[in-house]
Amino acid sequence: MPLTYFTPGPAHLYPSFEKHLQTFVSGQLGSLSHRSQQYRDLHKFTVDQLRVLLNVPDSHAILFLGSASEAWERILFSCVELESFHLVNGSFSKKFFDYSNALNKYAHKFEKPMGQGFNAAEIEVPEYAELMCVTHNETSSGVQMPVAEIHKLKQKYPDKFIAVDIVSSAPYPDLDFNLIDTAFFSVQKAFGLPAGLGVWIVNEKCLVKAEQIRNQYSIGAHNDLPTLWKNAQNNETPATPNVMGIFLLGKIAEEFNLLGVQNIRKETEQKAALIYKFLEKTPGFSPFVKEKPYRSQTVVVADTEIPSADIIQKVKSAGMVIGSGYGQFKASQLRIANFPATSREQVEALLSAIKA
Amino acid sequence: MPLTYFTPGPAHLYPSFEKHLQTFVSGQLGSLSHRSQQYRDLHKFTVDQLRVLLNVPDSHAILFLGSASEAWERILFSCVELESFHLVNGSFSKKFFDYSNALNKYAHKFEKPMGQGFNAAEIEVPEYAELMCVTHNETSSGVQMPVAEIHKLKQKYPDKFIAVDIVSSAPYPDLDFNLIDTAFFSVQKAFGLPAGLGVWIVNEKCLVKAEQIRNQYSIGAHNDLPTLWKNAQNNETPATPNVMGIFLLGKIAEEFNLLGVQNIRKETEQKAALIYKFLEKTPGFSPFVKEKPYRSQTVVVADTEIPSADIIQKVKSAGMVIGSGYGQFKASQLRIANFPATSREQVEALLSAIKA
Repeated sequence: MPLTYFTPGPAHLYPSFEKHLQTFVSGQLGSLSHRSQQYRDLHKFTVDQLRVLLNVPDSHAILFLGSASEAWERILFSCVELESFHLVNGSFSKKFFDYSNALNKYAHKFEKPMGQGFNAAEIEVPEYAELMCVTHNETSSGVQMPVAEIHKLKQKYPDKFIAVDIVSSAPYPDLDFNLIDTAFFSVQKAFGLPAGLGVWIVNEKCLVKAEQIRNQYSIGAHNDLPTLWKNAQNNETPATPNVMGIFLLGKIAEEFNLLGVQNIRKETEQKAALIYKFLEKTPGFSPFVKEKPYRSQTVVVADTEIPSADIIQKVKSAGMVIGSGYGQFKASQLRIANFPATSREQVEALLSAIKA
Repeated sequence: MPLTYFTPGPAHLYPSFEKHLQTFVSGQLGSLSHRSQQYRDLHKFTVDQLRVLLNVPDSHAILFLGSASEAWERILFSCVELESFHLVNGSFSKKFFDYSNALNKYAHKFEKPMGQGFNAAEIEVPEYAELMCVTHNETSSGVQMPVAEIHKLKQKYPDKFIAVDIVSSAPYPDLDFNLIDTAFFSVQKAFGLPAGLGVWIVNEKCLVKAEQIRNQYSIGAHNDLPTLWKNAQNNETPATPNVMGIFLLGKIAEEFNLLGVQNIRKETEQKAALIYKFLEKTPGFSPFVKEKPYRSQTVVVADTEIPSADIIQKVKSAGMVIGSGYGQFKASQLRIANFPATSREQVEALLSAIKA
């Protein structure tokens, strides 16, 4: 019997994944030249579907990388000559900060403990920081930064670049790309696809900055922004890309568009509400994130009184997989992904199994 | 009717690809956590199969990247503090050189026109070059550097690092990894898999050098060698990897091992001999590479008297796909891949179709 995965990534595959994979195989698309018109059409289809889904204006390019982690590096190379600023409240926002140090930039941070979130009013960005690095959804702790607060932060510092990690939330956050310079995600989370592809949304201002930085510092050699951008104008990539991943992503994004992104967002919130209500009402469980506006809608983290491993085991015997806590919280927390691939009925079945 | 691809990558998929893909899908491996024991077992299986296939000693790690182009960058970050040296005789060896400049290293080169090869005796490496960058098989021109010459080059300069691009030839070249510090390839060539995964073979001396360089210069942040190496000790990767690609590669490498790599190499040479003999005997065709030791065994390039597009079209109507020339040679050359996925019978059918 197939298992239902509520893990935060790699996650449950989208129900139509196998159908689209079959289309890829029967069309022999694995042998398709990445310099052919047929490839360019495939590439453009995916970009166009993502542009509609995430409401990305023409000022921004949509580029393909090997993973979202690669986007951290490419954004820092492109937008930071000397200093970056990071909101850190978990393992993944911390890694974005670490990457900046590893590239010998001066990385500032405003740090809070895991489980706590940020609002724009409390954030003071150092004068010389060129880029503000924000994690919309901290996968390790289940904290989200409300989109309105992200927008306010940019409005507070309009002359600084802002980068938003939407790895484990896209297409849920309704970002205004007139304010957001760059954002990125990977496909093994809410898009319900196998891992191996990152998507980088980036505006022309970042390109101009990268070209300026390049006069004095290296901006990297592989997938550097000017080369990626130039290739993207022709619906190509500099190196041979993950054609299968790009094809499948286009098909899933098309389905999301047919469902309507507003409906997907509403259903996400309804399913999240079910889970949080369960955690608040059920003895032995509580939401890790105490302040409601900061509770992630896509990765719910729960404190458990009994060892979380026991619950994970019980649920697995009922055919469902949930994640353990992250790092120091491994034994005392659960992480439950709430992505479009799992239905309301499946969420209800999960909650029954946890309670059983 | 399915087409037979003799294109140099993405190439014809290996005949058992669909079977292994089905195993991946039915096992729900697309949802597998990359921090689980089941993943670590899968990862180890692929590494072990590649270690046997390519005769890689324990002094070397086998690491996974998003593409082989990424390996160019990671090798330069890890092994070059200031100066690199490159043998350049086509577009891909040129890109390795360009990457070094883009990382603000000082890149030396010994350049020859497309179609010509290198021997160790004629190569003088500048005194301060730390790394010698060699392309075993130049995909753009169909020139190979004989493995014996690569080994001699290292023996001539034993104190310098040597990196070998085996992107479009592995597992054909029988490299002695007691001499070769690092090598890399991608899976959409001779392994007959969809693109989206690069493999980086690298020894501990490179790791030590990377750690030294890091004291003064950035060695990159994403997939930097020390972090990749540390994760590999535990059969993991720093970021979520292309699990599907790693799984499929392990299965193909296992099949290659069952066939025996010596048999694969012998069959590669026999098929290449058929193609070169055809080109020498058939009016209107000739091998682009004039000196036999430098003729690639895996990507054969032919000069054509009539426009190569006419031949490509004729062959396509017979159900087969061959590549055009690269860059300036697009209209006057053919590129014919000779990978394990296409059999001797299929090569014979191709040659008949070209002649028809």
